[in-house]
Amino acid sequence: MEDQSPKPIRCKAAVCRAAGKPLTIEEIVVDPPKAYEIRIKITCTSLCHTDITFWRAKIATVFPRILDHEAYGVVESVGEHVEGFAKGDAVVPTFLGQCDQCSTCASEQNNLCTAVPFVIGPGMRRDGTTRFRDAQGVPLHDLLAVSSFSEYTVVDMNQVVRLDPAVPPKLACLLSCGAGTGVGAAWRMAKVEPGSSVAIFGLGSVGLAVAQGAKMCGASKIIGVDLNSDKEEVGKSFGVTDFINPSQLDKSSVIEVIGEMTGGGVDYSFECIGVSSVMTDAFRSTKTGNGKTIVLGLEKYCEPVCLPSLELLFGRCVMGSLFGGIKPKTDIPILAEKCMNKELELDALITHEVGLQDINRAFDLLLQGKSLRCLIWMDK
Amino acid sequence: MEDQSPKPIRCKAAVCRAAGKPLTIEEIVVDPPKAYEIRIKITCTSLCHTDITFWRAKIATVFPRILDHEAYGVVESVGEHVEGFAKGDAVVPTFLGQCDQCSTCASEQNNLCTAVPFVIGPGMRRDGTTRFRDAQGVPLHDLLAVSSFSEYTVVDMNQVVRLDPAVPPKLACLLSCGAGTGVGAAWRMAKVEPGSSVAIFGLGSVGLAVAQGAKMCGASKIIGVDLNSDKEEVGKSFGVTDFINPSQLDKSSVIEVIGEMTGGGVDYSFECIGVSSVMTDAFRSTKTGNGKTIVLGLEKYCEPVCLPSLELLFGRCVMGSLFGGIKPKTDIPILAEKCMNKELELDALITHEVGLQDINRAFDLLLQGKSLRCLIWMDK
Repeated sequence: MEDQSPKPIRCKAAVCRAAGKPLTIEEIVVDPPKAYEIRIKITCTSLCHTDITFWRAKIATVFPRILDHEAYGVVESVGEHVEGFAKGDAVVPTFLGQCDQCSTCASEQNNLCTAVPFVIGPGMRRDGTTRFRDAQGVPLHDLLAVSSFSEYTVVDMNQVVRLDPAVPPKLACLLSCGAGTGVGAAWRMAKVEPGSSVAIFGLGSVGLAVAQGAKMCGASKIIGVDLNSDKEEVGKSFGVTDFINPSQLDKSSVIEVIGEMTGGGVDYSFECIGVSSVMTDAFRSTKTGNGKTIVLGLEKYCEPVCLPSLELLFGRCVMGSLFGGIKPKTDIPILAEKCMNKELELDALITHEVGLQDINRAFDLLLQGKSLRCLIWMDK
Repeated sequence: MEDQSPKPIRCKAAVCRAAGKPLTIEEIVVDPPKAYEIRIKITCTSLCHTDITFWRAKIATVFPRILDHEAYGVVESVGEHVEGFAKGDAVVPTFLGQCDQCSTCASEQNNLCTAVPFVIGPGMRRDGTTRFRDAQGVPLHDLLAVSSFSEYTVVDMNQVVRLDPAVPPKLACLLSCGAGTGVGAAWRMAKVEPGSSVAIFGLGSVGLAVAQGAKMCGASKIIGVDLNSDKEEVGKSFGVTDFINPSQLDKSSVIEVIGEMTGGGVDYSFECIGVSSVMTDAFRSTKTGNGKTIVLGLEKYCEPVCLPSLELLFGRCVMGSLFGGIKPKTDIPILAEKCMNKELELDALITHEVGLQDINRAFDLLLQGKSLRCLIWMDK
């Protein structure tokens, strides 16, 4: 009888061998999935700012490594004890897990599964091993237990979301990190209410997804704040109703301008840049009593968030969370459906598309601020 | 026909004439209530740390002034257009207003009435005048539009809560600021859930009231943190289940000890001291995912609250609010009833009682850390 068990696969991947250097397209070996794991054939993947942070090795410096964590693919094989997934299923891998059995998965307010805890390092699977080796047999580190800059990857079944195959791959890919984070921040974390006012600091892809999320929730005023005036037009196409370029204000601060626009401050503010001083501005732009600030960006220089204590005492709240507070398996399918119903319109986040061999161009575009999301197709 | 309208009243008051100096007991004149105002005969009043802050003139330096804002009394007369109050009604004045007509009073999440906004300065009534003059006719400033260190005071009707006359004056007095703030922080702001874990930094009267509030809400673990080991015993009488004196820890930090006690951090932490570094500790003591920190103290040195940004991003929340998020007219009667039913036990917060002539002893006791609340009776 023929051995039906999955075998190692030789395929192409983009390997990061040194901090800040171009990735190299190499032939690698991807191991079969172990128990509770799924091997996925990646269809497309996209580059997120978080990958840039790891690529620059600001945190968790381990090389050689396969980056990325925002992707769409199809199940190629499953390991022992995997239930609910079969070869050919349309899936997205996610950097957060959801076991649906632990106490936090049972809680509506907490998306950090304790059975499959989120950890940044050390670039290995939970058992301390890797599923990737290069052509010389040298182990390759992973990223957030996803590593989708490869034609194949292996992911814990708790970090894989099965989707309706009718969901377009591009869209599913976006929802698996950046866009899901932005929409989730408005929808699940802030719980934006109909008729409320919102300020979004930074109109990159996450900020624009926040705008769509706030619009979906019925916000009536959505103020976009960005130093690049070109963002006014793109912002408006995502639901932004008012735009402020802080560098073009005469004497007033952005906080004063937002205060005047809203009669005292917004109900909700979102920081989507990752700069401590902007986090403080976002906080001070909310109204007293119950203004809420959502911090989405990883602070670029590891500076703390500083809040004037008297202003905090006047009734404000600051929240942070991973993945905009969404639970991957519960919420990504809901958001995908909202996209297909046009309640959410995220397609325009994809500004560029390349094949795997041109992956370094995706880095250049993002670093130069020319792209929102650049999709990388494995078969193009 | 005799003129029935209220006349100026000559009475005794404790006047603060200079920062940090003993108050002087003087005869003053209290004007009749203007439209929408109520003149109250104060029965008892108690000294709160906030009064110490104003007495030291750390903020809003105006003298001569009548301090205090935590009291119980009886309506002596009402001004024009006052409805719902009559001479003889048992009442507490409060530093926060509640008009019950504005949009924030209609919101369940916001206790900062916009019709009668809370303002710290300039020690005058909203119309820019005062109701107090000294024996020489010199105007006396007020505090937070309450000023209860006087046998009589005049307060806006939106800042007066009518109570069942069966509520003991001592208890009502406590609820009108400090104890209401502490209980409210657990009940209305944090919304502590049954079975949850809580850490309280600082077991002064507000912190002890938080413990009672958390117990009332069903918290199963209530960790008290204080540098004074005598607080262990008093804490336990208020519902604290575990006690930590950070100065007596060997090598571990208070954050590590709380993490070990709770398997990763508390659900809710409360900062009741007013020190920036303790606010950061309180924040870091909460669990990832949805840990919530409530800041109750006014930062003593006006330092900002600093939150490590990565720890915020791992799913935490920091909130501040005035009066523990309670709406005075709605919530003080509810809390008074809970006290009378023994769901809440706050009586032991009153450690000392003096007459008005001994008011400076109340300051000494609080400054020396010997009292929790010292009640000052007008007729003793």
